Amino acid sequence: MSLAEAVLEGNRLALSRLLTHIENDTADGRAALEKLFSQTGRAHLIGVTGAPGTGKSSLVNQLAMSYRKPPDGESPRRVGVVAVDPSSPFTGGAILGDRVRMRDLAGDSGVFIRSMASRGSLGGLASTTSSMVQALDAAGYEIILIETVGAGQAEVDIARLAHTTIVVEAPGLGDEIQAIKAGILEIADILVVNKADRPGVENTERALRNMLQLSHPVQRVFHHHGRMLPTTEPGKLEDEPSMWHTPVLRTVSTEGIGITAVKAEIARHFQYLQESGDWQRRERDRLESELNDLLQAALLSRWRDSITSERYLRVVSSLVERQINPWRALDLLMNGDQQ
Amino acid sequence: MSLAEAVLEGNRLALSRLLTHIENDTADGRAALEKLFSQTGRAHLIGVTGAPGTGKSSLVNQLAMSYRKPPDGESPRRVGVVAVDPSSPFTGGAILGDRVRMRDLAGDSGVFIRSMASRGSLGGLASTTSSMVQALDAAGYEIILIETVGAGQAEVDIARLAHTTIVVEAPGLGDEIQAIKAGILEIADILVVNKADRPGVENTERALRNMLQLSHPVQRVFHHHGRMLPTTEPGKLEDEPSMWHTPVLRTVSTEGIGITAVKAEIARHFQYLQESGDWQRRERDRLESELNDLLQAALLSRWRDSITSERYLRVVSSLVERQINPWRALDLLMNGDQQ
Repeated sequence: MSLAEAVLEGNRLALSRLLTHIENDTADGRAALEKLFSQTGRAHLIGVTGAPGTGKSSLVNQLAMSYRKPPDGESPRRVGVVAVDPSSPFTGGAILGDRVRMRDLAGDSGVFIRSMASRGSLGGLASTTSSMVQALDAAGYEIILIETVGAGQAEVDIARLAHTTIVVEAPGLGDEIQAIKAGILEIADILVVNKADRPGVENTERALRNMLQLSHPVQRVFHHHGRMLPTTEPGKLEDEPSMWHTPVLRTVSTEGIGITAVKAEIARHFQYLQESGDWQRRERDRLESELNDLLQAALLSRWRDSITSERYLRVVSSLVERQINPWRALDLLMNGDQQ
Repeated sequence: MSLAEAVLEGNRLALSRLLTHIENDTADGRAALEKLFSQTGRAHLIGVTGAPGTGKSSLVNQLAMSYRKPPDGESPRRVGVVAVDPSSPFTGGAILGDRVRMRDLAGDSGVFIRSMASRGSLGGLASTTSSMVQALDAAGYEIILIETVGAGQAEVDIARLAHTTIVVEAPGLGDEIQAIKAGILEIADILVVNKADRPGVENTERALRNMLQLSHPVQRVFHHHGRMLPTTEPGKLEDEPSMWHTPVLRTVSTEGIGITAVKAEIARHFQYLQESGDWQRRERDRLESELNDLLQAALLSRWRDSITSERYLRVVSSLVERQINPWRALDLLMNGDQQ
């Protein structure tokens, strides 16, 4: 049986091996993903992002547990978690994170958790995350939580893989955090003020609501690879039902408080995405952007085959010695394949 | 007089205009950079990075002031600052930052400060920052401080533009910060524990020293675009004088405490870079990586000219409908220019 077939049959060990293949960017991993691709597109991808110290991991844990054992009589959902961990490959932070999580969710075959250290190139990281999500999607996980630290643009890019993005805040994280909030508000579909039992929660919530009001719906845009797409078309401003108003929720995730309300908003956002056509739009944007990444890598690789390394090193040396500027170097290299 | 000539003559308005051209990626900006490139490579580029709340900006301000008015009888240095601000283009955070800084350094023609909001694509951000640094370098600024929030990989990439990277920590920023430290330690040439008048400074400093010890010199590597270069060659392990041991310093930047020691370590690191050959190595890596970025963009643009948008959209639609997988889509698109 091929790796892809084993994954489709629900073999956890095969899925785990596939994710390792993906992380190492192997030919076997790619072959399996090629076969699995037609089975993707069914999961609800939920990004959970926020600054360090907001308690994202514990919120993600609680959400996963609540989807597994819904308190309200709903049927349990299969949950995948991809946690992008900013620690170094040398420290084993990602592995430690897995172990801490496992205590709560161990032995449940309806949950699959994978942490990934954020090594390697940026494009690589977003692309690896996306491939892992595809593998979990094909393996039948219905809810996939993608957890990232939300201070950098890279993490924002990863969160954008998601259909629904939850931005987590916490009271009293210092003024500089405010600046980050501003940038991150534009991608938030749901805002959660976690650690809501701490002093200052009213201030944090008020600040967030104020910022949401400032970013008036007409001005809110969805940035995507240099293009700026209005989330609402110019003629549709009166058409309130088609607009999403980002809710602000309080949670104390370590005690499970507020989790049901977050789940309810996730479900409501899913409905909104389906009805507004945003689900399809986001799918298309995501797949197109992934295709563009593949294309760039393939073009670079084809070009590299067309030029000798002697020629390349000669041009780089002239550049380093500042005999030529980078654009002249580019000209010299781009003409390499016409000789 | 051309923009480039005006910049070389020390015209601040021209430099300011050039930086705006760079930020907007205009043809005029590029033309000026092409002319200025031969005048670059002289400045000492110093990255200052750290999590939100560590007081990076105030440390950068103090360093700039101290280079301008050295307390120890040295001659003042010309200082440029590029602050990459994670706030949204909509909130004006970057502009506010400029104003706050200006209070301390206003009217000094030997200082030039520019903030930049981190909009647009990632590659774009690092590349814009690099171009701005080149402009300041050509304009004769001898010390260029590049300030970024250090939680994401993007900021790490920006910090890597630098010859010397200072990572700023502060006591009591929560446990999750520890994980980030681990990742960021590998790029730190100098570690600064700022806000050292706060409780917990001993713990923070001890944790940093422990982590530095764990990352034994033999294991410390310089990640660069997928390659991993040992910072010391295998046969040279006994050769202690050629190794850099990252110092850990305490500062209270709001009161100017510890700034002179940071400057001394910066000067010592400059010496080390020159004597070890690392200066040349970092220059080469940086220029080569920038050239590769240019190359990728040029290859993509040349390819786009070779394919009709109808063909492109047809392939994307098949992909979105999952009739084909991304690699099949890539095959179809890559063969487009051979028809």
